[in-house]
Amino acid sequence: MANHVVHTCIRVLDAKASQRFYEALGFQARGRLNFDTAYNLYMGLPGDGDTLELTVNLDQDEPYDLGTGYNHMALTVGDIEDVLTSLSSLGVEPEKPPFHPGGRDDLPLIAFVADPDGYRVELIDGGVFDTPQDPAG
Amino acid sequence: MANHVVHTCIRVLDAKASQRFYEALGFQARGRLNFDTAYNLYMGLPGDGDTLELTVNLDQDEPYDLGTGYNHMALTVGDIEDVLTSLSSLGVEPEKPPFHPGGRDDLPLIAFVADPDGYRVELIDGGVFDTPQDPAG
Repeated sequence: MANHVVHTCIRVLDAKASQRFYEALGFQARGRLNFDTAYNLYMGLPGDGDTLELTVNLDQDEPYDLGTGYNHMALTVGDIEDVLTSLSSLGVEPEKPPFHPGGRDDLPLIAFVADPDGYRVELIDGGVFDTPQDPAG
Repeated sequence: MANHVVHTCIRVLDAKASQRFYEALGFQARGRLNFDTAYNLYMGLPGDGDTLELTVNLDQDEPYDLGTGYNHMALTVGDIEDVLTSLSSLGVEPEKPPFHPGGRDDLPLIAFVADPDGYRVELIDGGVFDTPQDPAG
């Protein structure tokens, strides 16, 4: 059985641009692993593990094809407007202004932003809490 | 700033097949959120949050295009051979037998398996530990 979810790994084209983006969200650079044809950069939020692995393939010079399958990484944030203001200074704007998913006021405000490769990141307003869920059935 | 990495979200075609796969890895079904055109299923490892969000789009009947960007979710496992044996009973085999990344004996044994939609999952042998890292520079 699995013990622990360690990280999510995405392939990125411009490591420095990715690091700037995730640092603006509060991630810290943690270290790297070097291989013959690629290197991995690790990042994590303060007090948390190395939850984000950025793979940089040395021979990659075209944007990655993001397909239609992978959706996003979700982060809780203390104040979604503050985070969007920080990102705006990097030229990053949300897909649309913060909204309640499905128009449901019982769910927190969220917004989606895209990292430099276009991977979506979900920002969930209001700090740390359990995922709201509907009754089974 | 972000407080917490909440989940990784992937779009899946066959919710029951995905749940069987992730349950074989030790994930528990946690609940769901219902929307007009989709629903989300949440799963998590014992003692951990709802770290995996499976989005099921109600009008989707073709396999998702996984592209070339998203790489994997990584899990530490107590004994990689035990986990591979469990998965084998579901017809899931690793891309190749467990190996040390880059042939580096200082790194733990890993293997990659594919979930029912083809998303790669990295299994890291040996329980919970910090991500090994090379010196900066």
